[in-house]
Parts: sequence; structure tokens; C-alpha cells
Amino acid sequence: MSSSPWSTTSWTAPPLAGGPGGADALRPLLGTVLDALRDGAVARGGPVPPGGPQDVTAHLRDALRDGAAHHGGPQDVTAHRRDRLADVLPDTGTGAEEALRTLVAAVARGAADPAHPHCVAHLHTPPLALAAAADLAASALNPSLDSWDQAPAASALEALVTRAIATETHPTGPDPDALVTTGGTESNQLALLLAREHHGPTLQTVCGANAHHSIHRAAWLLGLPEPVTVPAPGGTIDLTALAAVLTDLRGPLLVTATAGTTDTGGIDPLPEIADLCDKHGAILHIDAAYGGPLLFSETRRHLLTGLDRARTVTLDLHKLGWQPVAAGLLAVPDTTLLDALNHTAPYLNADDDTRAGLPDLLGRSFRTSRRPDILKIAVTLRALGRTGLGHLVDRVCAGARQLADLIETDPRLDLYEPPTLSTVLFRPCGATDHAVAEARRDLLTHGHAVLGRAHADGRLWFKATLLNPHTTPDDLRELLALTALVEGTTTR
Amino acid sequence: MSSSPWSTTSWTAPPLAGGPGGADALRPLLGTVLDALRDGAVARGGPVPPGGPQDVTAHLRDALRDGAAHHGGPQDVTAHRRDRLADVLPDTGTGAEEALRTLVAAVARGAADPAHPHCVAHLHTPPLALAAAADLAASALNPSLDSWDQAPAASALEALVTRAIATETHPTGPDPDALVTTGGTESNQLALLLAREHHGPTLQTVCGANAHHSIHRAAWLLGLPEPVTVPAPGGTIDLTALAAVLTDLRGPLLVTATAGTTDTGGIDPLPEIADLCDKHGAILHIDAAYGGPLLFSETRRHLLTGLDRARTVTLDLHKLGWQPVAAGLLAVPDTTLLDALNHTAPYLNADDDTRAGLPDLLGRSFRTSRRPDILKIAVTLRALGRTGLGHLVDRVCAGARQLADLIETDPRLDLYEPPTLSTVLFRPCGATDHAVAEARRDLLTHGHAVLGRAHADGRLWFKATLLNPHTTPDDLRELLALTALVEGTTTR
Repeated sequence: MSSSPWSTTSWTAPPLAGGPGGADALRPLLGTVLDALRDGAVARGGPVPPGGPQDVTAHLRDALRDGAAHHGGPQDVTAHRRDRLADVLPDTGTGAEEALRTLVAAVARGAADPAHPHCVAHLHTPPLALAAAADLAASALNPSLDSWDQAPAASALEALVTRAIATETHPTGPDPDALVTTGGTESNQLALLLAREHHGPTLQTVCGANAHHSIHRAAWLLGLPEPVTVPAPGGTIDLTALAAVLTDLRGPLLVTATAGTTDTGGIDPLPEIADLCDKHGAILHIDAAYGGPLLFSETRRHLLTGLDRARTVTLDLHKLGWQPVAAGLLAVPDTTLLDALNHTAPYLNADDDTRAGLPDLLGRSFRTSRRPDILKIAVTLRALGRTGLGHLVDRVCAGARQLADLIETDPRLDLYEPPTLSTVLFRPCGATDHAVAEARRDLLTHGHAVLGRAHADGRLWFKATLLNPHTTPDDLRELLALTALVEGTTTR
Repeated sequence: MSSSPWSTTSWTAPPLAGGPGGADALRPLLGTVLDALRDGAVARGGPVPPGGPQDVTAHLRDALRDGAAHHGGPQDVTAHRRDRLADVLPDTGTGAEEALRTLVAAVARGAADPAHPHCVAHLHTPPLALAAAADLAASALNPSLDSWDQAPAASALEALVTRAIATETHPTGPDPDALVTTGGTESNQLALLLAREHHGPTLQTVCGANAHHSIHRAAWLLGLPEPVTVPAPGGTIDLTALAAVLTDLRGPLLVTATAGTTDTGGIDPLPEIADLCDKHGAILHIDAAYGGPLLFSETRRHLLTGLDRARTVTLDLHKLGWQPVAAGLLAVPDTTLLDALNHTAPYLNADDDTRAGLPDLLGRSFRTSRRPDILKIAVTLRALGRTGLGHLVDRVCAGARQLADLIETDPRLDLYEPPTLSTVLFRPCGATDHAVAEARRDLLTHGHAVLGRAHADGRLWFKATLLNPHTTPDDLRELLALTALVEGTTTR
């Protein structure tokens, strides 16, 4: 056997990221990654690579094909499949340096970079360097938060930080707590799941027409009735319509409100919705995936008045919290509200281990293995403090005001309305919806700007979601200049 | 306003991870992280910190309290809560260097490090340095895989790599494809969800008593009937019992088999189960979260014969693939089997954008924002190639054989059975189950070893899951010596 080409006796396994030697193994590889990130960003030159999907895919395929001497794939597939496979999984590896350099540079060159001031389509945040650096430690240590013996300190940190964050959303709750999720979507799923377990499978969800699509998808996932949708003609829930719906419906009800909608950044009238829920015996969930960090801003936290009246609150610090994905949370006023997630798997939380004092973590998620996303969050909260986070929130909201002011003074552009958060909708005067949609795609596929789109008032608008605290007024002027060339544009 | 303490006009926002300047901003912070990782590992000294949950939490709290001058939390909570908050979220931040140094060192010092050869409790892999380095690029670029305009190259890479991996599981499938998940649990959820959408909500799941707990939890999450459990007395599904169950049941059936169980690493008889499914019109899902990478081993891939007969296959490269969490996949023989996940959200995949050629990514997950976990997987496949990955798989399986051999020659220890994969069950001769459970907890809380536990043959066993390719025979001998002190141990 020792003469077989598959013998591994003389083969040295690549180094690990952990242990006392992990840091030294990582150091040169990280140098390669940083060089490739910079080279890729320089090669891209703008917010997004030009050429659209076909060119980006072709460029990536070329990068994969170059530089690797590979020798075909398995024998039991067609030649075409074998080629496709070999680009991804060569028989003989290219080594760590080549693979990191090639793939990181290709992905960086082909990125839509939210750190570029003209990449403003989505709630797609440019992460802080300090958060990305902290995230490396999560990858290297690889604690998994499904049992204490895989994550002793990471699970203790998660317990401290989630309780602190939930005390922000529910300062007077009996025992505030929060679960860490992969984002607003999982948080909303958990909110509906907890309500289903409390009130049974006939639970009827009621949401605004402005609610995030994940509310509908969560109901589908969980086998709940399709949500009843209440009109939101001005971008936020119509209270009269909500009152009428709650009066008509029978059985257990869950109302979901939104604090920071995806389309306009609007905030539903939270105290009034909470009052209606009280009156009609409905429970309240607030999706504050976008707006939640207003809590850190002394001058803007009043916009979230009423948040603490929700049974569950979705937060998502990979939006207005400058974290790499994922950094979601679901906060509750009392940790016992999470009991429905309790679950036993003897290899992870045997009863005698729990009685002996080993923390039981399985009830903290409906996932099992879980990356410690709490570490980068904890580093960010500590490094910036409440003041720094508030400054960041204020900075991007002020940027949105500036952009709105620039739009208002430009006779070629219409502003939808002054921004509540950091989202601004605008459109060239006189342009058709089709022209707006085409212009957005042209800016994207030419590599000039990444703008979003939203329907409001029966028309299609450009959407700019400002999340980059380094964006300058000149950046905003240049962005608007790029949008002024839409076919059919008139002046006011 | 400019004289307000909250004015941000003169405040400089911290640097971002992206853009042309991101690499230079990251470099010194990564140096801090690497130093803290090394310092934490040295301070720990072993596989896990001594002292158990109370000491670990106390140590973490002390680390948070030291070094930061903080000034209390919000005014509207009690003093106790204010203190608890201020440790996590001070009013004034401590800066990036202090926060990274403090928190990364504390989490590293309090980690259960899978890179230590005596940390063998779970399918908790020591990540390769090259995979952790690639993961940094994912954090820094922050592509989000819910729309093309947030992840142009990352989504193209995901499409290439998922199709290549699915061609490994289903080499003759019509159009193999795979979804990226947060792990085996989400993959199993998706498998049951796709089956539910195909066959309706009366779908009956049938699984072995050896199945992962997430099969039961997925049925609960999705509102499906509780799975029918088939006995698995020897650690794998009893075929006679399965045939009887399938004969008895009516209506649409989904059988889940396991290729690499959590408790013993056993592999269900896949071809025979597939035959029974064909005979009874049941569809087959195979959970190969653990065993899937046997496909890369020339000498062991035969253990997965029959895998390609499954409608859905769970893979999880954060187990036997040496990736940081998360690195899950769900593979199918034909991409059209994923159509049930199609979903529209106008801000992410408007019909006119899709018609114009922008790829629609929302149907690739039931999450929305998604981190590009594919990047570290792609780097690993390319760097190591099929040969290197096969060597890693063979290395840890050979390590498990060595451990089993050492146990067999030690008169104080009983071996459960020769390992199929890299999991070995053993117990001190004559010890009670209670003594085994206590010994496991003692080894853990004294910081000596992180062993798992499993019930088999009516007894409780130590479980060692070998995933570290650098583990030596001496490491294994030391591990066994640590377990030989259990109260009541006799010799054979």
C-alpha cells in the first residue's frame, strides 16, 4: 500500500488556523488576501465591474482556468462536466497561495463594493475594518454555539451581549434577552414561530403592504395562514385600515409592524399600532432590522418610541450596524418567551449534563452549528461605544438629508419625500417607469453606480440607501449627475 | 447645533474594510487579532480552559470590566442593568485596538480549540488556515447573495462551485445543483421543505433512530407530521423494520437515511434503502453531513455507493471539510427540484430585471442576506484538489483506526466497534454510565480533554471524533491515559 499514489504517509497536511501555531500560519496567508483584495479593488476601479452578468461570469471562469494546471475530473461524467468540475476541483491542488490570490482577487474585482460611495442600492452595508478583523478570530477559533463544550467563552460572551442589546430594546422588560440569527429574515421566522407555538397553528399574521417579504415567506415556511395585508399608501401602515382588519378577524392574531421599511425607510406609527394590538388582544412584532440602531442616537431614538411594547423585535446589525453578514438578532422582553425553542439532543445537552451545570444552548436557535457572530458585534459595541455608534447612525441619516436637499434643488429631479432614515427615493422628471428601470440597469452594467429601485405613489423611483459614513457631498453630487441622463427627462 | 455634544461634524468615522484603502486599514488590526489569538491560546494552555462554566464566565466578565473606562448606561434602567450594559456597551468606546485585543484574547483563552488533539467531542472541525484566511475576504467584501447587484462575482462563483459539488454527489443527474446553507440542520430543513412542497403537508417522514435530531426538528418547524422512527439497533437502520414501516404507511413518504451518524459515524445501507424507496414509491433524502467528503477519497468513496439515488443530499464541509462554520450544502440531481423555493421581492428580483438578464438569486435560500460561504470552500477545493482532500479524509479515518487499535490492546478499555469513519466509542471496563458521564465532565471542567458521549448497546460511551489531521499516535495514547482513571474501572 505504501507505493500507492493515494498513500498519505509522507504527505504533510496543511496548517490549521487554531492552536498556538495558528497565528503564524495565518499571517502570510492574510498578507496574500490583503494584496488580492487591494489588487481586485484597483482592477475594478468603480463600485461594480462593468459588463453585466455575462462578462462577470466570463471573467471569473477565465481566472479559474488560468494559473492552475489541472488534470481532469472523475471518469464517470461527460467531458463537458469534467471540464467544468476541473476548474473548481482540480485533481492536484494549486496550493494555498495560488488559490487565495486567484479567487480573492477575482471576487474582489467582481464585487459590488458597498464601501464605494456610488454603491447604494440596498441595505448592504460597508463593514467596519474592526468588525471584519474580529470576524477573522471567529473563523480561526471556530467555536460552534450549539454546546458549551464547543464554545465556552464564546457562549458566555453571547449571553452577556444579547442580554445587553435586549435591554436596549426592552429596558423595562422582566428579563430581556435576544437570539442571534442570520439576519432579519431568520429573526422574522423566529418571531412567527414563537407566536405559533404560543397560540397554535391557526395564528393569523397581519402585516402592512410595506412589510418585508420575509414575513410572507415565514408564514409559508411555518405552515401558517397567508398573512392579511393592510394598505400602506404613504409607505407606512394605514391605522384606520388596521383597526378595521383587527375588528373583523377572529382567533389569535399577530401584528407585524416595520421600523425602517426596505423601500422608503419609513417607520410605522408604533405607539398607535401597539394601542390597537392591546385593544384587540393581538400580539405585536416589530421588524426593526433597518431602524433598530436609531436607539444608539441621542437625537433620533425618539423615532422608535413604542418599540418596547413589542413581544418580539427584529434587529439586524449587518445593516445600520456596519457588520459583515450575518449579524441578526431577535429581542424579547423576557427570556421565558424563548422557551418554545427548547430542544434536546442527547449528544449536545443530555439531562445529566444540564443538571450538572453545563449550559444548554440548543434552545438558542433553530440552527445547530452556529458561528459566533456575536464576537464582531461585541468588538464593535466596545470599540465605538454608544456615542460612536450614534455618530455613525447620525452621519448616514444626515447624508440622506443632504442628498434629498440636492435633489430638491435640481430642476431635473423629483424627490419622493424627505427621508426618515437613510433611504432617499428620487426620479428624473418626466421619465417613464420603463426608462427609470433601464437607466438603473445601465448604470449597473456599465459599472457606474449601483442604485436600487422602489415603487411608491404608483411610480418607479431610484432608491439610494446611504450606509457609508465616509460619503461626501461631492460623492452625492456625482451620483446625481450620473442619473440625470435618463431618456425623456424634463425639468420642473 | 454645532455646539451640541452630539454634533458629528468634527468626528472621524472608523475606516471601512472595503474599497482600495480597506486592506491598509485591516493590516494593523489583523496584527492585533493574531497576537491576541496566540496570547489567548498560550494562556489557555490546553484544549479547553479549566474551571467550568462559572470560571469561564467570571474570567470573561473580568476581562470586559478591565481596561475600559466606561460611564454607565442609559438612565431608564436599574443600576444593576446599567452596570451589565456598560460592560458590553460603554458610553464612550475603547477604540479598535483595545476592543480587539481584549475580546479576541478573552474568547481565545476561553475556547474549546478543535486544533488541540484532545478536543474531540463533536463534529467540530479545526479549520484550515487557508480557509480561515479566505473567510476574511468574505467579511471584508461583504457580498450578500440575495441579489446579483450585491454579489456579482460571488454569485457567479457560487453557481460554478455548487454545480461542481453536486456533480460529485449526482454524477449522472440531469442538471446537478446545490444550495449553500448554514449547516446540516438547514440542509435537512430544506430537504423536508422541498418534499413538502412537492407532495403536500401530509408528507410523512420516516427516519432511523440514528437520524440527526434536526430531522425531527425540521418536521416540527415546517408543520409536518412527527417522523416515524425505525429502529437502528446496531447504529444503522434495520432494513426489515424499514420495509415493514413502508408497507404499513399510506400517503406520500420521505425516507431519510444517514451517511455518517453523529453517535457512531455509521453509514446506513444506502443501496438497500434506495431499493425499498423505489419499491414503495417513497422519496429518499440522505444526510451525508458527516460522511459526504468520503467522495474525495479514492479508497473510501465506495462507502457512499447509492448516494446518487437520493433526491436530496445534505453535505456539511464544516465537519469533514475543515471549513469554519458555516459551510453546509443541499445537493440535488436536477436544479428544477429547487423550483419550490422561487420567490419574488420586487426590490431584489423585479420581473423586468430578470427578463433583462439579471440573475435571480432569491430562490437559492430561505434566508435573504447571505454571506459568501462559498469563497472559503472554493479556495479549499482549489488549493488542495481532490487528492489533498482525499488525503485529509484518509488521514483522520486512519487516526480513528489507530485509536481503536490502542483501545483494543488496553485491558482497561472496551471498544464499541471498529470505526467506519473517524468516530470511536470506548469506555472503561466495568464503569457505570454515571461514572462515564462524570468522568467526561471532569475532564472537560479540569481543562484536560473535550470528549463526547454516546449511548449504544444500552450503555454510555466516551465518544472521540477525530478531525485533526495533525494528531499523532502519542496524542492518542495521552488521550487514552486521561480516561483510564474513571472510578470503578476494572480490567478485561
